[in-house]
This record gives sequence, C-alpha cells and structure tokens, in this order.
Amino acid sequence: MHWIDPTKTDAWDHLDELSKHPIDLTSYVPWAERIRDMQCSTPLFRLLFATERIDEDGIEALAALARETQAVEQFEMMLGGAEMNCTTGADNERCQVLHTASRDVFDDLRYSVDGRVCSSPSDAVKLATQRLDDLESFLGEIRGEFTDLVQIGIGGSDLGPRAIYAGLPEFRADGRRVHHISNVDPDDAAQVLDNLDLGTTLVVVITKSGTTLETLTNQELVVNRFAKLGLSEKQVFGKHFVAVTAEPEKLKFPYRRVFPMDGYIGGRYSATSMVGGVSLAFGLGIDNFREILRGAREMDLNALRRDPRENLSLLTALLGIWNRNFLKCHSVAVVPYSEILGRFVAHLQQLDMESNGKRVNRTGDAILYATGPIVWGQPGTNGQHSFFQHIHQSKTIVPCEFIGFRRCQTGFDGSYKGTTSQQKLLANLIAQAEAMATGQASPGNANKEFPGNRPSSVLIGDKLTPRTMGALLAYYENKVAFQGFVWNINSFDQEGVQLGKKLADKNLGFYDAESPDSTGYILMKAAGLV
Amino acid sequence: MHWIDPTKTDAWDHLDELSKHPIDLTSYVPWAERIRDMQCSTPLFRLLFATERIDEDGIEALAALARETQAVEQFEMMLGGAEMNCTTGADNERCQVLHTASRDVFDDLRYSVDGRVCSSPSDAVKLATQRLDDLESFLGEIRGEFTDLVQIGIGGSDLGPRAIYAGLPEFRADGRRVHHISNVDPDDAAQVLDNLDLGTTLVVVITKSGTTLETLTNQELVVNRFAKLGLSEKQVFGKHFVAVTAEPEKLKFPYRRVFPMDGYIGGRYSATSMVGGVSLAFGLGIDNFREILRGAREMDLNALRRDPRENLSLLTALLGIWNRNFLKCHSVAVVPYSEILGRFVAHLQQLDMESNGKRVNRTGDAILYATGPIVWGQPGTNGQHSFFQHIHQSKTIVPCEFIGFRRCQTGFDGSYKGTTSQQKLLANLIAQAEAMATGQASPGNANKEFPGNRPSSVLIGDKLTPRTMGALLAYYENKVAFQGFVWNINSFDQEGVQLGKKLADKNLGFYDAESPDSTGYILMKAAGLV
Repeated sequence: MHWIDPTKTDAWDHLDELSKHPIDLTSYVPWAERIRDMQCSTPLFRLLFATERIDEDGIEALAALARETQAVEQFEMMLGGAEMNCTTGADNERCQVLHTASRDVFDDLRYSVDGRVCSSPSDAVKLATQRLDDLESFLGEIRGEFTDLVQIGIGGSDLGPRAIYAGLPEFRADGRRVHHISNVDPDDAAQVLDNLDLGTTLVVVITKSGTTLETLTNQELVVNRFAKLGLSEKQVFGKHFVAVTAEPEKLKFPYRRVFPMDGYIGGRYSATSMVGGVSLAFGLGIDNFREILRGAREMDLNALRRDPRENLSLLTALLGIWNRNFLKCHSVAVVPYSEILGRFVAHLQQLDMESNGKRVNRTGDAILYATGPIVWGQPGTNGQHSFFQHIHQSKTIVPCEFIGFRRCQTGFDGSYKGTTSQQKLLANLIAQAEAMATGQASPGNANKEFPGNRPSSVLIGDKLTPRTMGALLAYYENKVAFQGFVWNINSFDQEGVQLGKKLADKNLGFYDAESPDSTGYILMKAAGLV
Repeated sequence: MHWIDPTKTDAWDHLDELSKHPIDLTSYVPWAERIRDMQCSTPLFRLLFATERIDEDGIEALAALARETQAVEQFEMMLGGAEMNCTTGADNERCQVLHTASRDVFDDLRYSVDGRVCSSPSDAVKLATQRLDDLESFLGEIRGEFTDLVQIGIGGSDLGPRAIYAGLPEFRADGRRVHHISNVDPDDAAQVLDNLDLGTTLVVVITKSGTTLETLTNQELVVNRFAKLGLSEKQVFGKHFVAVTAEPEKLKFPYRRVFPMDGYIGGRYSATSMVGGVSLAFGLGIDNFREILRGAREMDLNALRRDPRENLSLLTALLGIWNRNFLKCHSVAVVPYSEILGRFVAHLQQLDMESNGKRVNRTGDAILYATGPIVWGQPGTNGQHSFFQHIHQSKTIVPCEFIGFRRCQTGFDGSYKGTTSQQKLLANLIAQAEAMATGQASPGNANKEFPGNRPSSVLIGDKLTPRTMGALLAYYENKVAFQGFVWNINSFDQEGVQLGKKLADKNLGFYDAESPDSTGYILMKAAGLV
C-alpha cells in the first residue's frame, strides 16, 4: 500500500475550511433533530455526538478523509496479517499487528461485513484457540490450590488487565483475589505482599521481552519473600510461579508453566492475549474471560464497516481528529461516570499516548500536523468536584468523552429525594455535556458566564459486564489504530521510550563510580543520591 | 490593594522577549555550573530546575514579575486575613482565605521571616488550636470502639485527605483502617461496604455546605445498611456518625459529634482542617496528624520569603508561568517516583484546575492571557511504560514536575543486579529529566531522534513522612495561590461548577415528567435513560 499524507487530501482542505466557522451550539440549535441524527449504535453501545462542535457537512468531510486515507482498508490489512508495524528507515521494527486475532476464536463471529470476509490469518486463529484451551486446562490443574494471584508486570503487562479486573468486581470468582505489582518502587510491592498468604498465592510474571528490569526486580523481591518460608527455588517456581513472555529462552527460572505471548501482539494491545488471560481467567473465571473476548471481537467486526456512521471506533477516531487537528485542542478528557472504570483511564492513557504520541510518519519523515492528544481524566461525578471548573470556564478547550451505563453493576442502590444514585449519576453526565455545549450568558458578571461551544460526546451502554468491557476495550484500541492510520503514523512501535532507558542504565552505574563530567551524575549528586 | 494586570508589567514584556530565544539544552550546556546554580532548598526538599528551559536572565525576569505583581505581599495579605476570595461584580463571593491558619498552631513556628512577623489572625489561630484539642479529646472518647472509619465526602472533602492517607501506609495506626466513599455511583459505595464490619465502624460525613447531593445520597445508602442491623436512627447516629460542616444547622440528623469547618477555608484547601483531621488522626494517630500540620506550616513560612530563589512554592509557580504563558505549554504532568503518591496527583488536579481554570480576572473582566494548565500524571516508573513515548517524541511539549525521595517509606527493599529497587527508581527519574532536556540526534532515522528541549524540574526529599507530606501539600497549595496572584485571578471561588449542577437538578426531574422541548430531556431520551 502507498501511504497517504492526510494533509494532501481534498477532505483535509475541506475540513480546514469548515473549521473556520464551526457550528455555534450556544445560540439556536434544532436539538431534537440534531440529537436524532447524530448518533451511532452497536448492540452494546450508543454514541451520542450532537454535543460535538460539528455539523453534517463536517461529518461528511470526515468520512471523506477516512475514504481518502483508506482507513478501513488499513484496518482490514491489519486484521489480515499485514506488517502494519512499520516505519521506513534502518533499524526500525517491522512486523504484523495481530492482537485482534487473540479474540477471533468464535465460530459464530466469523461472518462477513459488507460482503467481505473478516477473518484473521488461520495460523493466528489456531494459536489463539489453542492458548485459550491451554489456559483452561491449567486452571483445571490448579483448582483448589490458590486463593490469590499476584501479577508482576508493568506498562502493557499491567494497565489493561488491571483496569479490566478493577472494572468487574461483581464478576469475581468466589474466594479468589488478584493483585498487581508494577512499579519498581519497593513501596508498591510491600503494600501488596503485606496482606498475602504466600502459601496459597500464584505469581504470574509478565515480560514480553523477558528482560524488563522493573519486572525482574520485583520478581526477585517476591521470590525472596517465598525463600523466607524455607522453600527452595525449585519448590517456589515449580509450584507458585508462571510466566507470560514472547522470549521464553531469556527466562532463567524453572516456572511451573510458561504461557507464550506472540511477537505480533504489542504490549498495550495485549489485554485479550495471555497477558490478560492468566489473571483474568483466574480472577473472573474462564467463561467471563471468554465473554470479554466476545465483546472485543464484536467491536472488531463493527470496525470493518466502511461507513463511519455505522463504525463506532472509526467515528470516534474521526471526531477526535476534528477536535485535535481542526479545532486545535491539545488534550482529551475521558470521564467515565462509573467509579470502577477509574483505572481504565490510565490504560487508555498508555494505549493512546504511547501509540500516537509521534512526530514521524511511516515513511520516516518528520510531520507538521498534530498527532495524538494528551489523554487524561477521572470518573464523574467526582471530576465535577475537581477539574470541571477548568473544563467549563478556563481559556483552554478540553473535549470530553463521557462514558455511562444505564444500570449499575452491583445492583446495590437506594433512593434519596425521589431518585436512585444511578439516576443521579446519569443526570449529571448528561448535564455536563449540555452545559459544555450550550453555555450560559451572564450579563454584567463575566465570572458567572459560561462560554459554551465546548465539544463532548456521550458513549452509553446498558451495564458494565465482561462482554461490555471487552467491547469498550476494543473500541478504544480500534479508535487509536484508526487515528494512526489517518495520520499516517506507526501506532505500534515506541522508540520514544528508549533514550530514558539507556540513560537510566548509565545512571545506575553512578551508584558505584563517580563520573563528574556526566550530566546524569551531576544531577544525581545535586539530588543527594550519590 | 490595587490589582495588577501581569501583562502590563515591564517584566512581562521582558519575558516575552526572552522567550523568543530560550536556552538550547541540546547543544553545549555548562551543566555542572548550571545545576549548581539552579536549585532551591528548604530543610525537607530541594528543587533542581536546571532542566527547565530558562537561564539566569529569565529567572531574574520572573523574580521581577513577582515583585511587580506583589505576589509575596498578596500571600502575606492572605495569611493575615484579607478577603482574597473576591471578584468585582454582583453576587460574587467575598471572604477571607485562611486555610493556612489551620496549621498555624505551633509556638516554635511563629517566628519572623525577613524581619516580618508571619502570624495568622489570632482568633483563627485560637479556633484552629481549639479544634485540634477537641479532636484529640474525641479520639480519647472513642478509644477501643472502632476498627474502621468510612469517610463520605466528595471533591475537596475527599481528594486531599484520601491522598494523604494513601501516601502514608507505614504510619497507619495498628488495627485501624480508613475507607472513602465519594462518587454518587452506587458501585463505589458497594465496594467499600462489602468488606466492613459496621458494628465497629465510624462514619464521617463531610459537606461544607451541608447540602452536597452526592454526600447526602451516600449517607442515606450507608444509614440503610446500618438500619438492616436492627439499629434505630438514634442508635446509628448517636454512636456511629460524626459530621464535618460549615453549616451545622443544615444537617438533619443527631450526629454523635459535629466538627466545625470554617467558612474561610475552601474545600480544596481543607486537608489540614478538620476535613482531613478526623480521618487522618483516626487512621494515622493525632501525633502524625500534627506532624502533617508542622510540615505544612514550615512550607507556609518559606512561602513568605521575598526572593523566589529562596521561596520554593513561588519559584515553582514562576517556572510554571514561564512554561504556560511564554513557552505556551497547555498542560503540566506531575510524575511522582513514588507509587503511594498516585492519589496525590488527583488531589493536585483539583487543587490547581479548580483554582486557576479561570478566564476572568479579579476586577471581573475577561482576560486574554493563559491561566491554569491542565494538570495530570501518574507515578514513575510506571508512566515511562505508558505516556512517556508522547512526552519524549510527540509534537506537544508537556513540562514535567518530577518528585522523588531518597529512601523508600517501608524500608522493604532488595538488591537485584547490584542496585536496590529504590536506586533503580531514582536513576530512572533523573534519566527522564536528562533525556527530555538533552534529546538525542539520530542521523538518517528520524524515528529514533529525540528533539530534546523539553522542560522539567526535580523535587527531591529524603523520605515521605507525615511532615514531608504536609510540606508537599502546602508547597502545591502555595504554588497555586502564587500563580493566581500573579495572573490576577481569584483562585478561591468555583463559579464554573454551577451550571452543571443546575442542569443536573433539572435533568433529575425528567425521570418523572416528560419535557420534549428541553435539550437535557432529549439527550436523556436518546441515551435510553427516560
């Protein structure tokens, strides 16, 4: 495929023109028709985008941009096994991007979209299926042995699985708990280990490269705790430790089991692979893990639709591009009106910022247009009592992506002043989108004026279940991929983390040896570290 | 005092001029001298700012800006009881801002700075002292009665106290645990209540106004749980419930005790008042709570120094203004290399964005210059495996405030490959600041190039203790206040949250009655809520 510079398309010029006079949401707007027309539904979710600062012409221009940049065709290529992790230039990665295959394991979800067959490469499907079966048999093997699981991993081996587990408290298997150690900060591990009976604890060590320093360091900390129980290394690893890795030969210990991670699955896209599988199937049960995969697969199929008005991930990707490149907003706030999705925002932050925080396109040239935004947020209504002053009245426009569910997960709710807590939660969500869009005049007191015209969207589902969670995960994975396809950047490498790693390695040497000419050494000395 | 428009000062023009050619940190820099000269210390902290993109001329111009806008004089006025919560215009709040008095309770910390006496109004000091004594006597009264405390509050009644408790795990009182319910989301309360023995649980309800809907709703949920134990309302409230409020007459129940909150303490500045006091003194012990106050008071005294080179909060405020108004950065990432400070970033987000996310100055006029940035972040090293790709290589510059401690809190650490976890943690912190500043060329492969010249600072302390935590809290409170003083905005009101509240109230009515012409109703119907 010939990569297309989005700024060279007709659609880009058209969008540029349209952005000079975006719709004014503060004066008369035919809201009933607008809201009716500006929504997109899948079986599990509905996206309301009438409160974005765009009209039908803009949506059509965005659709044209997707067509001209062949966004859906690129998604098909990815799904089909093309080497989409590629940037022209010596020493850059080049490989397939097949996290979608990890959930392409359902015979009833192998149908066609728009007349096209939507299957992953058959060997990847076979591997994914086999790995799920292996996981299930392992869970059978350890039945009754463990009450707790500690997952040691960082970044992609931590954020997604942790967010999913935190988001599904009602679906936890009885008598089982999952814990996470990620940071090399020893205070992190200490907090987890202090409340644990190691005798009934399974440890999962996840490192794609087999060499992640934080993870191997934390493994050592945990192994030493086991050693204090008088167990030999063989006893500890033979019973209590399993690993997930793409480089099994780099691991030095006799793990009870090593679950393979495929090289073609990037860390931040790995929650539906064995990276998420081991802890989630342990903590939620294998059936719930399969439901997560089902929801994700359904969303992948939706992402193959050519028309963005029917393709939820593509639509939200395009609206994000509108806000980023044409309305010039630097960040996006993801605000789930669901406290248990608090960790999910941290996952999205990685997914999006590590994928699309780039300044070089796939032909290796520095680019002039803006790419991935800063992604941040906290659950509502809490956020309303925190940063919403800034959202409504500051000089910086922050588009918001609201997420809500009609029903709470636990079913534990009560009525106060005539409405339930869940009803209050959702009335607040809608109110924020409305307030941001419409604003409020305040003649004579600018301090109480709301300028309005602040874009947002509302993604609404019925209830957060494993299937919904899987769909939500894939929705954002696919959104990020679509944006990368349109921006013509490689969303699947992360060269930007290398320099910090290299300098950290160098700095570690300064604990032993002075190096008065090195900037790192001088900084460490000034900080009182050496 | 006559408020000064910062853009009308000579210093502003000078800074504007200097910002056209900021120092290049990627080519030759005399790092040894620069790092030696660009630091500021207090007994508990040292700020290294050589990796900011500024030189001595810039620092001097920032100091001039502080002088011309009378930043320290305004801080003195605040401390002394002036009505600093003020914006010209009908219906705006007007009151004193005296959260600093809540920690002005130490006879040995009532000395003078630069020859000036630094005392709070004596009646406020008297009240603060008395409230602490009352709290101590209450703790004596309940000794042995409770194992758990549940704090119900949202926003300022939640974020600060919660962050402080989460940040001091090693200082927790034996056999006591503190929990927090904030969100009106019923799944939030359910998760806390499911693991609790209510018989030995004390509930603290915190609402400054006495009418916070989320808090009263959650109180009702919790009361109903108690009722299921067969207790009468009188039994429940007489034993298990206390309140903290500025409006005791608005509360409807016979609480065991009502702790007053002073009207002159804003929610987001209230962690050192009884808002934080009840839960922190219960969970950490009264002596540790006093240590938090001591650290905060010490930092308040430091904030009275006229020279920003000796005034840590003012210095960081000015560096933030340089990055925001002159280098045009929209956001700042706070990255503590301490996992237990993860919640602290959420507190800072509220503190900063609710205070300074404003577009109107104190004379009630809309302003043209930028004010408070977006504040976000996650602990390192985790952040390195998440959003640091974006920090190092995206097109958007995000200044970082790194925070680190030479020693871990728990003392539980181990060696792996010749260094401890804590040493690895700090080597990474320094490496990020260095990599951001210096960058790295990569001839022939732009994908591996790091542009550098990305500003950051490093705040380093010895160990996170109650006293250090109090100092860190006040450091940021004072930073935010100083920025507001320079920007000539009112950092102490929050009119921007009102419209959302009003519309949410209206939307609540739609669960009972149709209103086909209302935007909120149409949105709720489209979302399937009504």
